[in-house]
Amino acid sequence: MLEQFDKAFESRIRLQIMSVLAANESYDFSSLKELLEVTDGNLASHLKALEKEAYIAVNKSFVGRKPNTRYVATEDGIEAFKRHLKSLEKLIKQQK
Amino acid sequence: MLEQFDKAFESRIRLQIMSVLAANESYDFSSLKELLEVTDGNLASHLKALEKEAYIAVNKSFVGRKPNTRYVATEDGIEAFKRHLKSLEKLIKQQK
Repeated sequence: MLEQFDKAFESRIRLQIMSVLAANESYDFSSLKELLEVTDGNLASHLKALEKEAYIAVNKSFVGRKPNTRYVATEDGIEAFKRHLKSLEKLIKQQK
Repeated sequence: MLEQFDKAFESRIRLQIMSVLAANESYDFSSLKELLEVTDGNLASHLKALEKEAYIAVNKSFVGRKPNTRYVATEDGIEAFKRHLKSLEKLIKQQK
């Protein structure tokens, strides 16, 4: 039962981050923060958790002199996310 | 985005408990523990969290001299669970 459920996506914020990164080539910290309506600290800690799983990767660069931190979903991350959604889908179907 | 996501169901265990109680009239502690393969303490703390939200109710009785603790989903709980699943369903559809 829910064998494929991935603890990394247990949190709503991490589920949303992954959803955004699966649908976009990359996303920067500020836009992500705005979209998800979370604090810097909260977002940073969830991003770090996903990075630790190697589900997302960080891309640090400069736009002019301004630092620009962008996040991308890794192939592993996308695969894990899809498995997780399948497990949720199964749960939903059981309820119908 | 994920407005209907319910923090009470963020944990896999709570999601599973609710899924079981939505599908069964009631369920006792030991069977739930066996089904979800969790420890007493872990299960108890998740049940307490759902009880606090009034999503489940506890039914204590005796079978002979043996105490029998059964859990039932409340109407509010079922409603909240359905809303939560709808929000997950939306997320899944966005990914397709």
